[in-house]
Amino acid sequence: VSGSLTSRTLARPSFEAAFEPPVFLAAMVAFESALASAQAEEGLIPVSSARAIAGACERVTFDVDALVAEAKGSATLVVPFVSTLRSAVSAVDPAAASHVHFGATTQDVLDTAMVLCLRPCLEEADRSLEGAVRALARHAQEHRSTRMLGRTLMQPAIAMSAGVKIARWAAALAADRERVAEAQALALVVQWGGPTGTQQGLGMKGIAARKHLARRLGLEDGPSWQAHRNAWLDLLDRLGLVVLTAGKIARDIALLMQPEVGEMRESPPQEGVGASSAMPHKRNPVACAHALASATRMPGLLSTLHSAGLGEHERALGGWQAELALVPEIASALGSSLDFLDIIASSLVVDAARMKANLDSYGAPGTTTAGDEAAMDELLGALAPHLA
Amino acid sequence: VSGSLTSRTLARPSFEAAFEPPVFLAAMVAFESALASAQAEEGLIPVSSARAIAGACERVTFDVDALVAEAKGSATLVVPFVSTLRSAVSAVDPAAASHVHFGATTQDVLDTAMVLCLRPCLEEADRSLEGAVRALARHAQEHRSTRMLGRTLMQPAIAMSAGVKIARWAAALAADRERVAEAQALALVVQWGGPTGTQQGLGMKGIAARKHLARRLGLEDGPSWQAHRNAWLDLLDRLGLVVLTAGKIARDIALLMQPEVGEMRESPPQEGVGASSAMPHKRNPVACAHALASATRMPGLLSTLHSAGLGEHERALGGWQAELALVPEIASALGSSLDFLDIIASSLVVDAARMKANLDSYGAPGTTTAGDEAAMDELLGALAPHLA
Amino acid sequence: VSGSLTSRTLARPSFEAAFEPPVFLAAMVAFESALASAQAEEGLIPVSSARAIAGACERVTFDVDALVAEAKGSATLVVPFVSTLRSAVSAVDPAAASHVHFGATTQDVLDTAMVLCLRPCLEEADRSLEGAVRALARHAQEHRSTRMLGRTLMQPAIAMSAGVKIARWAAALAADRERVAEAQALALVVQWGGPTGTQQGLGMKGIAARKHLARRLGLEDGPSWQAHRNAWLDLLDRLGLVVLTAGKIARDIALLMQPEVGEMRESPPQEGVGASSAMPHKRNPVACAHALASATRMPGLLSTLHSAGLGEHERALGGWQAELALVPEIASALGSSLDFLDIIASSLVVDAARMKANLDSYGAPGTTTAGDEAAMDELLGALAPHLA
Amino acid sequence: VSGSLTSRTLARPSFEAAFEPPVFLAAMVAFESALASAQAEEGLIPVSSARAIAGACERVTFDVDALVAEAKGSATLVVPFVSTLRSAVSAVDPAAASHVHFGATTQDVLDTAMVLCLRPCLEEADRSLEGAVRALARHAQEHRSTRMLGRTLMQPAIAMSAGVKIARWAAALAADRERVAEAQALALVVQWGGPTGTQQGLGMKGIAARKHLARRLGLEDGPSWQAHRNAWLDLLDRLGLVVLTAGKIARDIALLMQPEVGEMRESPPQEGVGASSAMPHKRNPVACAHALASATRMPGLLSTLHSAGLGEHERALGGWQAELALVPEIASALGSSLDFLDIIASSLVVDAARMKANLDSYGAPGTTTAGDEAAMDELLGALAPHLA
Repeated sequence: VSGSLTSRTLARPSFEAAFEPPVFLAAMVAFESALASAQAEEGLIPVSSARAIAGACERVTFDVDALVAEAKGSATLVVPFVSTLRSAVSAVDPAAASHVHFGATTQDVLDTAMVLCLRPCLEEADRSLEGAVRALARHAQEHRSTRMLGRTLMQPAIAMSAGVKIARWAAALAADRERVAEAQALALVVQWGGPTGTQQGLGMKGIAARKHLARRLGLEDGPSWQAHRNAWLDLLDRLGLVVLTAGKIARDIALLMQPEVGEMRESPPQEGVGASSAMPHKRNPVACAHALASATRMPGLLSTLHSAGLGEHERALGGWQAELALVPEIASALGSSLDFLDIIASSLVVDAARMKANLDSYGAPGTTTAGDEAAMDELLGALAPHLA
Repeated sequence: VSGSLTSRTLARPSFEAAFEPPVFLAAMVAFESALASAQAEEGLIPVSSARAIAGACERVTFDVDALVAEAKGSATLVVPFVSTLRSAVSAVDPAAASHVHFGATTQDVLDTAMVLCLRPCLEEADRSLEGAVRALARHAQEHRSTRMLGRTLMQPAIAMSAGVKIARWAAALAADRERVAEAQALALVVQWGGPTGTQQGLGMKGIAARKHLARRLGLEDGPSWQAHRNAWLDLLDRLGLVVLTAGKIARDIALLMQPEVGEMRESPPQEGVGASSAMPHKRNPVACAHALASATRMPGLLSTLHSAGLGEHERALGGWQAELALVPEIASALGSSLDFLDIIASSLVVDAARMKANLDSYGAPGTTTAGDEAAMDELLGALAPHLA
Repeated sequence: VSGSLTSRTLARPSFEAAFEPPVFLAAMVAFESALASAQAEEGLIPVSSARAIAGACERVTFDVDALVAEAKGSATLVVPFVSTLRSAVSAVDPAAASHVHFGATTQDVLDTAMVLCLRPCLEEADRSLEGAVRALARHAQEHRSTRMLGRTLMQPAIAMSAGVKIARWAAALAADRERVAEAQALALVVQWGGPTGTQQGLGMKGIAARKHLARRLGLEDGPSWQAHRNAWLDLLDRLGLVVLTAGKIARDIALLMQPEVGEMRESPPQEGVGASSAMPHKRNPVACAHALASATRMPGLLSTLHSAGLGEHERALGGWQAELALVPEIASALGSSLDFLDIIASSLVVDAARMKANLDSYGAPGTTTAGDEAAMDELLGALAPHLA
Repeated sequence: VSGSLTSRTLARPSFEAAFEPPVFLAAMVAFESALASAQAEEGLIPVSSARAIAGACERVTFDVDALVAEAKGSATLVVPFVSTLRSAVSAVDPAAASHVHFGATTQDVLDTAMVLCLRPCLEEADRSLEGAVRALARHAQEHRSTRMLGRTLMQPAIAMSAGVKIARWAAALAADRERVAEAQALALVVQWGGPTGTQQGLGMKGIAARKHLARRLGLEDGPSWQAHRNAWLDLLDRLGLVVLTAGKIARDIALLMQPEVGEMRESPPQEGVGASSAMPHKRNPVACAHALASATRMPGLLSTLHSAGLGEHERALGGWQAELALVPEIASALGSSLDFLDIIASSLVVDAARMKANLDSYGAPGTTTAGDEAAMDELLGALAPHLA
C-alpha cells in the first residue's frame, strides 16, 4: 500500500489503492491488450498477433522495483513496460512481438491508464455525493422550523432556519455532483495517437481502430488530447469543487461543534473515535479534520495542475510528468472528503435546544420565518432529481 | 485608471477599466435602483420610494477616496455607499430613504456588481475566442499539407502536418469557449438574500421580487449563493482554462520563433513592436510574453479563489473579502491573453520553408500523411459550429 | 490612486501608493540619474552628460497613459520611458542623449525601481512589527497568570496561561521580523548589468560604476541577479511569513471574539467600526478580516512568484513580466496585515472573566501552572532584544 | 516502497524511503525512547521506567495497516502507536507503562519524527549541491572564453561568455545551499510541549528535560513550535528555492539541447538513457524532465504549506494534518531535482563549436569581452568558500 505513513492516515483506502502499482499496471496492460484487438478488427495487425498479445497480457507479471528503476532512465515507465510485455509475447509468438504497442507512445498508455484508474473513484464519489445529498435533505426537512443564529463574519447576524442552512449544503453538493457528471462525460476519453497524436499514419483505419479501442475499454472516443488537456483539467477542477464544498461544510460543523457553541456534532460521541493521545476526555472532530485537510491541499494541487498544463509542442517536458504524480494526490484529497461526507450522511447530530439557547443569548431581534419557508421550498425543489 | 504601473503594461485597457471605481460604483447603483423597482413591483416598498431611489441613483455621485477610507472601518464599501445614497434619496423624498437597500446586505450589492462588471469582459472574451478559432482554422486549412517536425519532450519526434498542429489550437480554444458559455449561463446570477440569504423574511414576495431584480439587471435568477459559490468559481476556473490554452499556444509559438527554429512568428516584423531598450536589432515576441505572463499568474489566482471559497457560515471572514480583490486580477490575466489571441488571429506567420528545412535536417524517417489527413478532417469537423 | 475598487478597501494607503505610476516613475528616473552619475565617476560617460541627465531627470514628466499604451507594443515600459527621457536631455544637451540608459537594459531599470519602491514598505513593516511585538509582550506580562482554555483541533484541551498564548504571538512576529531583516540585507541589491548582466563590456570600470550606483541609491551592490532571483524571492517569501503569522493571530482572535466564546476582541466596541450594512447591532472583526484576507491571498501570490522564477536564459519570457505585476500585490497583502497588527497593538481587549468562566464550564481537570511560568520566562527572554 | 506508480518514476529512492512507514515509525520510537530517558535524567519518571521503555522501543513492532486503520478514527497515528508501545512496555514492567509518552501529545511525536526523517534528506541535498557547484564552477572556468549567444525573451540578445552563464548557475546553487544551511540551523528543533506546548506543568524540569531530549536526538532545543511553524516553513520554502534553481538550469539546458540549437546536453548520448517507447532514434532530456517536473510541482506545494500554516489556537484542525501529508511530497520534489543536479555535475556537455556557429548565424554585433572577464572573476570569487 502506498504513500508516506502520515498521508496514509488521511486516505480513503479504496482511493489509495486505485493508483498503486498492481492496479495501474493492470490498466496499462488493459490498454495494450485492447489496442491490439482493436487494431486487428481493422486489419492493422494480424488477428493472431492480437490473440497472442491478449494472452500474454493475462499472464505477464512485472517486477515493480526493477520497472521503476529502469523507468528513471527514460523518464517513462513505458519503455521497460513494453519491453517486458514484448518478451512475454515473443515467448509464445515471436512474430507478434513487434505488434505490441503498435503505433502507440508513452502518453497513450499512461494517460489512458490514468483515466481507467480514476474512473472507479468517480463512481464512488457519485455514490457518496448522492448519499450525502439525501441524508442532508432529510435533516433539512426535519429542521425546517428549527431556528438558529445565522452568522456572518464570524458574528451572529439574524435568525434563520437550521433546515435552510443544511439544505444549502445539500444543494451545493448536488450541484457539484451534476458538474462532475457533465465534465466526466467529456473527460473519460481514450488516449491513442502515437507521438504526434495522429495515429502515426494509419489514416481512417487508425481512427476506426481508436473507436474500437474506446469501446473495449468502456471509454469515450475522441481525437488525441495529449497536448490539449483541458477537458481532463476541467474534470479535476470540478473534483476540487466537491472537496471545497465538503470543506466548507466541515468548517461550519467544526465551528458549531465548539463546546461553547454546541449546535452540531459530526457524529454522536463514540468510544475510540476522535480520541486524543494526551487527553482522554477529549473528542475531536476527526471527519472534519479530514475534509479540512483536503480542502487545504486541493487549491495547491489544482494550481500545479494548471501550471503543468502549459506544455511544449506535442508533449511537454516536465509539465505532463508532474501531472502524472499529481492525479493520485488529487484523488487522495477527494477520497478523504468523501469519507467525511459518508460520516455526516450517517451520523450528523443537530442540537436544536442549544440553537435556541444561543439564539436567545446572542440573537438580534428576530425576523419572521416566511423567508426561510420560501427559501426551503426553493432549495428542496431544486434537489428533487437527486432525491428521487 | 487603476493598477500598479507595471501591471498596467500587461493589461487590456477595457478589462482594466471594467472594475475601476466609476464602473463598479455604477454597477452597485444599478443594483440598488433595480432592487427598489423590483420590490415596488411586489408591493414590498411604495412605488413612490422606488421612483425616488431610481432618480437618486441617476444623480448620485461618490467621493471615491472618502468612500474607500470609510470602507476600511467596516470592511465593506456598502456601509458608506448606502449612507451616501440614502442622503441623496432623503434630500428628495425623506420617506423613501429607509427603502434604500431594503432587505439587502453587503454581499448582495458587491457580488451582483462583480457579476455585472465581469459580464462585458465575457462578451469580449467570446468575440476574441471566436475570432481566434476562425483565423486559426483558416491557417490550419492552408497548411494542411505543410509538413513540420512534431516535437515531444522538446526533441524532434516524427513529422506531422502543420495544419493539424494549428487545428488543435483552434479546437482547444473552441472547446474552452463552449465551456465558458455553459458555465456563464449558470454563474451570472443575481445575488440578493439579505444577511442569511433568505430575503430577510419577505417570503414568496421576496422570491418574486428577486426574479424581477434579475430580469431588470439582465441576469439569471436563483437562490442566494453567498455562502456556496461554486457556480461562480466554476466560471472563473474555466476562464483559467482559456488563459492556459492561450499560454500553451504562446509557448509553442515562442519556441518556434527562436531564430534557430524560425518556423512561426506571432506577427510579421513591424516598426516599434517588440523593440528592446538596449538592442535595436531585436524583435521580441511581445504578445507571447503577455499570454505567458497571464498563464503564469492564473494558477495562483485560481488557487487563492479555491482557498477563499472555504468560508465560514453565512458569510466568510477574510475569504470572501479576498475574492473581491481577486476577481479583477483574474479578469486582468484573461484580458492579456485575449490581446495575444487577437494578435495571432490577425498576424500569425507560418514559414513553411523553414519547416521543411528543419524537417530535412533533424527529422526522423518520415511517416505517411494518411494519419494527418484523417486527424485534420476530424478536428475541422468538430470546429464546424464555430466556423459557421 | 490605484487598484480595483474592491481591492482598495483592503489596502493600506501608503502601500497602495508605493507602486503607483508617479512613485514608480520617480524610482525609474532615480535609477537613470544615478547611473549616469556613477558612470561619469568612472569616466565611462562625460561628466557634462551626467549633469545634463541629472538635470533632465529632475524636470522630466511623463504622460502615464501614453507610456502604458506604447509599453504594450514592446512588452516593456522602458522603451517609451527612455525615449521620453532622451528627448528631455536632448533639448538641453544633444550630445548627452546617447548617454541616457547607457549600458543598461529594461530589467535593470524595472528591477531596481521595484526594489526602491518596496524599500519604504519594508521600513513601515519593521515599525509595525516592532510595535506589535512590544504591545503583545505587555499584554503577555499582564496576563501571565490569567488562565484560559488551551484549544486543539477546535476543542478544549487543557488550561494554559493567556500570557503564554499572547507571548507566542509576539515571539512569532519577532522571529518573522528578524528573518525579514536578514533577507532584506541580501535582497535590496541594485540591478545593473545590461542585456546579459555583464555591464555590457565595461569590464572592471563597469563593476566600479555599479558600486557607485548602489551607493547613490542606498542599495547593496552585487552582480546582476536578473536571471537568478532567489535572494529577492526569499525576501518576498519571508514577507509571506509575516502575513501568515498575522493571519494566524487574526484567526485565533476571531475565534475568541465569537460571542459564545467572548474571550478577546480586536478592539473595544467603537462607533462606526465594524458596522454592518444590514444589521445595526453588529460589530464585525474588521481588522481580522483584513489579516485573514491577506493570509488567504498570499500563498497563491508566492506560488506564482516561484512559478514565475523559472525563467529562460538571461531574461524570461512571461515569468519575469508576471513578477512585475505580482510584487505590488504581495506588498498590498502585507499592508493589510500590518493594519491589523497596528490595531491589535493599540486596541486588543482580553476578557479574563470570560476566560475563567469558559474554563470552569468546558475545562478539563487543570494542570499546575509551573509549565506556563517556565514557558513564559523562556518566551519573554527570547523577546528581550525586541523590547529593549 | 511508497507512492503511486507514476510518482515513483520521478522519485529519488533514498528520499522516497525517508518517510516510509518503517523509517517514520523508527523516528517516532526514537522520540519516545529519548523522551523517557530525558525525563529520567530530571527525575520526572523513574530510571527503571526509562530503561523499560528504551528496551521496549528496541523490540516493538507495528502492524502498519492496522495502525493506519485505527489512526483514521482519531485523526492521529499516535493513539494506536502509543497503545502498542504501552503494551510492549507493560509486558516487561507494568509500572512503566504509564510513563510512556508522558507529558507528550500527538504533535510532539509527529513533528519531531518529521524533522528526524527530513534530516538525512538535507544532508544528501547538501552533498549534491556541493558537488554541482564544484562541477559547474569547473565548467565555467573551462569555458571562460567560450562565446555564446546571450538570450532574452527567447530571442538572441548579445554575445556573452558561456563560462559566465554556467558560473551564474553555480553561484545560484551556492547561495541556495547557504540559505538552506542557515534555515536548517533554526528549524531542526525538537518538538515537545504537550497539548498546549508548556511541558504540561513540568516547569523548569520540563524545560531541562527538553534540552536532554534534543541532545539525545541530535536536534536543536527550543520552545514548542506547534502553533507557530515559520522556522520550519522557512526551511521548506528555501528547499523550494533549490528546486527552482535546478528547474531554471534545466529549462536553460533543455532549450540549448534542442537540436536546432545544440549548444549543450545534459549528458552524452548513452545506451538506454532517454529512450522513447515509440521512436528508437530519439534521446530525451530525462534529467531535465525530472527537474522541470519538480519545479512545476513545488510552487503549489509551498502554497499549500503556507495555507496550512494558518492554524487555529494551540493545534490546527485540518491545516497541520495537511502539512503532514505535504512534507514528504516536498522532499520528493527536492529529491528529483537533486538527481538532475547529480547528472549535470557528472555529465554536462558543452558544445563550443555550435555556440560559435549560432553566434555567427544569429548574433548581434559583438561586444568586447571585458565585461565577461570581470563578471567571471566576481562570480568565482564569491564561490570560493564552496570550492575550498
